[in-house]
Amino acid sequence: MHGLTYFMSEVALKGLSVSEKRNGGDLALTTDFYELTMAAAYYYYSYYETERNYPARKIKGIFELFVRKLPRNRCYMAAAGLEQVLHFLMNMKFSGKQISYLKSTDTFKNVGEDFFEYLKKLNFSGSVWAIPEGTVVFPYEPIIRIEAPIIEGQIAETYILAMVNFQSLIASKASRIVTAAKGRPIVEFGSRRAHGPQAALLSSRASYIGGCVGTSNTLAGYKLGIPVSGTMAHSYVMFFEKEEEAFIHFNKIFPSGYLLVDTYDTLAAVRKIIRNRINAKGIRLDSGDLYSLSVEARGLLDAAGNTYADTKIMASGDLDEHVIRALVNRGAPIDCFGVGTELSTSRDDPAMNGVYKLVAVRKPTRSSALGENNKYGMDADRVVYKIKTSVGKKTYPGPKQIHRTFENGLIRRDFIALENEKDIPVGSTPLLKKFVDNGKLLFEIPSINEIQKFHLQQVKTLPAQYLDLESVPETYPVVFSERLEDLSKQFRPQ
Amino acid sequence: MHGLTYFMSEVALKGLSVSEKRNGGDLALTTDFYELTMAAAYYYYSYYETERNYPARKIKGIFELFVRKLPRNRCYMAAAGLEQVLHFLMNMKFSGKQISYLKSTDTFKNVGEDFFEYLKKLNFSGSVWAIPEGTVVFPYEPIIRIEAPIIEGQIAETYILAMVNFQSLIASKASRIVTAAKGRPIVEFGSRRAHGPQAALLSSRASYIGGCVGTSNTLAGYKLGIPVSGTMAHSYVMFFEKEEEAFIHFNKIFPSGYLLVDTYDTLAAVRKIIRNRINAKGIRLDSGDLYSLSVEARGLLDAAGNTYADTKIMASGDLDEHVIRALVNRGAPIDCFGVGTELSTSRDDPAMNGVYKLVAVRKPTRSSALGENNKYGMDADRVVYKIKTSVGKKTYPGPKQIHRTFENGLIRRDFIALENEKDIPVGSTPLLKKFVDNGKLLFEIPSINEIQKFHLQQVKTLPAQYLDLESVPETYPVVFSERLEDLSKQFRPQ
Repeated sequence: MHGLTYFMSEVALKGLSVSEKRNGGDLALTTDFYELTMAAAYYYYSYYETERNYPARKIKGIFELFVRKLPRNRCYMAAAGLEQVLHFLMNMKFSGKQISYLKSTDTFKNVGEDFFEYLKKLNFSGSVWAIPEGTVVFPYEPIIRIEAPIIEGQIAETYILAMVNFQSLIASKASRIVTAAKGRPIVEFGSRRAHGPQAALLSSRASYIGGCVGTSNTLAGYKLGIPVSGTMAHSYVMFFEKEEEAFIHFNKIFPSGYLLVDTYDTLAAVRKIIRNRINAKGIRLDSGDLYSLSVEARGLLDAAGNTYADTKIMASGDLDEHVIRALVNRGAPIDCFGVGTELSTSRDDPAMNGVYKLVAVRKPTRSSALGENNKYGMDADRVVYKIKTSVGKKTYPGPKQIHRTFENGLIRRDFIALENEKDIPVGSTPLLKKFVDNGKLLFEIPSINEIQKFHLQQVKTLPAQYLDLESVPETYPVVFSERLEDLSKQFRPQ
Repeated sequence: MHGLTYFMSEVALKGLSVSEKRNGGDLALTTDFYELTMAAAYYYYSYYETERNYPARKIKGIFELFVRKLPRNRCYMAAAGLEQVLHFLMNMKFSGKQISYLKSTDTFKNVGEDFFEYLKKLNFSGSVWAIPEGTVVFPYEPIIRIEAPIIEGQIAETYILAMVNFQSLIASKASRIVTAAKGRPIVEFGSRRAHGPQAALLSSRASYIGGCVGTSNTLAGYKLGIPVSGTMAHSYVMFFEKEEEAFIHFNKIFPSGYLLVDTYDTLAAVRKIIRNRINAKGIRLDSGDLYSLSVEARGLLDAAGNTYADTKIMASGDLDEHVIRALVNRGAPIDCFGVGTELSTSRDDPAMNGVYKLVAVRKPTRSSALGENNKYGMDADRVVYKIKTSVGKKTYPGPKQIHRTFENGLIRRDFIALENEKDIPVGSTPLLKKFVDNGKLLFEIPSINEIQKFHLQQVKTLPAQYLDLESVPETYPVVFSERLEDLSKQFRPQ
């Protein structure tokens, strides 16, 4: 047993005390190595500003997370992953052992002890603005903004991106699938194809936010309170000499369990259920032509009299939003769907390309140094806007807010402006809320049921073109303020 | 802080004692709920066999993991994930709290206390045969075979699949990318787009097995001993007033660090490095036309004299095997590549469709009941072969071995036979080895460096058609024994 690497599949522990959390993992080290080399470089730099010199590490960075381009086939994005991001920030800490590891690397061998002492004491002391989980958002909209001492903000980048990119990807996919099913329940079934056990759990969470009614993942039930379901696999049926034995026995122990009917021959199995008078709550089809099989199975059940009038038909097996919509539109008598691989891996496009960009730095003391690009904003004398001009990877500078307006209950426009711009659309709602103030969480995070409910309401605010499963819109209802467009054009790298 | 769900990013702890491991997570609950309902159903069933009755839970199930169809574009698969599977099996255990959760679900409300007592005591007591990590394998080849009391084998399914599917997927993708680079080193950079923090870590591991020289993931360095690298992001460059300030300062602290040159204008940045006589070990291009930029940057560096003769050029930015091969074939002066999203999400196809199927059951006592499908095999009187006949999802019955033959060092054929068949190809090598005997690990798992080295040797045994990046072979060098084909055709469900 010695020598085996220990991979905790697990991941989520609810209701721990703060002190327990502190011992709870390797949170801070889940970061790209360059975040740590940059941290050391910031640490040793003294920033020269007109009349004074001050340590770069005391300057605050303002970072924003946004997506430049949605994954293939997506018309909107369901923001998800914030709860885990906040947990990470509240618990980001380096252990002595981890610091010893860093010191042992070639890269850090000449870095001074004072930097490591600094790392040892590091806590997240910054502030966080974010769009609540479940909100529908579009490209270029900042989902999370972090203002923190530059080193803290930098180190947090990798974890935040991995968490938000993945959960938003899956929540968005789930949301489409739920739309396709037109009210028929969707259960997430994809743990075995998810990218490892933690991805399976995160996928259950994000799918539930996106509107799934439950998951097959037991841990998601235990840790997150998501309804779990599942009854039998083919192996169970195969274990028995005769298929009907498997059904009869299972039904005795789990009278409300669905019976899996496609191990050998789907319709023959349905006939066995009826012939043996097994009072099945439901059956599950998992292969073959689901439309014909559901029609024929429904016919057999209905012809067998009252016992089977309420027997439900569930379908699974390589389903996605297109297959489900086609089945629903053809009127297949399927009561609910189980969706696995296509959902838990977002198979049509498995990457949400969220980025986390420095949009400004805030200097710790008032200074008379006014840069050319400082002329806007309340704190113009202290905030220096930052912008990237790489080919195809341009950013908009400055800390931003999104102001959403509605018309007849539908999203009319998202107006993105600098945080402190006054000229915003009348009647608009700001999307970013402050969640953390100087290291303190400001309020309780909603329950996962509340987040799901919120998302389902959000979907109803989408104009029809964003709910189309086949075509991607040419434009999004997003505009930048004149000031932002101005700043973005003016900027010339020095 | 209260109310935040705790998502340990972490996952891997090396060298824990057995007792610590026992407390180390929620391993057993990382399973699909139906594995547990099936467990209860097996528990309560008594199997009737001619002259005697015995509890189904004492019957052993033989399960095999294999892939029916490779992910898109793949010509072979690099097996990976076994170390974590073995760790899981050695530590699969339910806590009292977890069992209380199960009892609290509607589904289990009528299940007897004796089942939960059984679960509480459950340990993996079975045996495991597997193909060593890094081996190249083809569709339908069993990668892992587990023989265990049916309940143990069943509960392990979900974790095993999630772990092996994902790591094999990424190792296979990495292997292709490494082939494309023709000897130029590849560093895995994909943590921020991986499916959560654990997937990021697993992706680093699998990419390293596939032949990458390192990763950006710090945790993978700390926990798995994989070389980590990384220097700076655009945010670091943007933090400074002038780009050259960022370079000069970084180079002082990390003289061997690569400088990122595309924040504003790639070639202008290279000129600044030269003008300021910064002794850069390397530069990194991250956007734009990488071919032209690398040629022009190399030109500038070479023209600047000896100082820059050894300055390396790294390229990154949405690279995959095709882009890398094109750059290499055109002779781009790029010394190494960083690959992110396309690798860590296996973006061209993010799912390995491995399945875990019951191929036989072994009865605990000798019995005179000889079934029609029992006539082959050493233990024919005790083993009942199992097969699934669902449309498109057929399986081959019985516990199997793969016998590989070579010709001039290249794989000639994989002959798949029942484990105990005698008529196997002369000079063939069996691929499946026994790793666990009745719950005991038989030997140490190789180090990750050994696994990588083994995989790189394995790639050299692939005939050219399987190393083609553009076309997928029409056939694989895999044949089933006559007995297996026979059994598979004969089988009629009862």
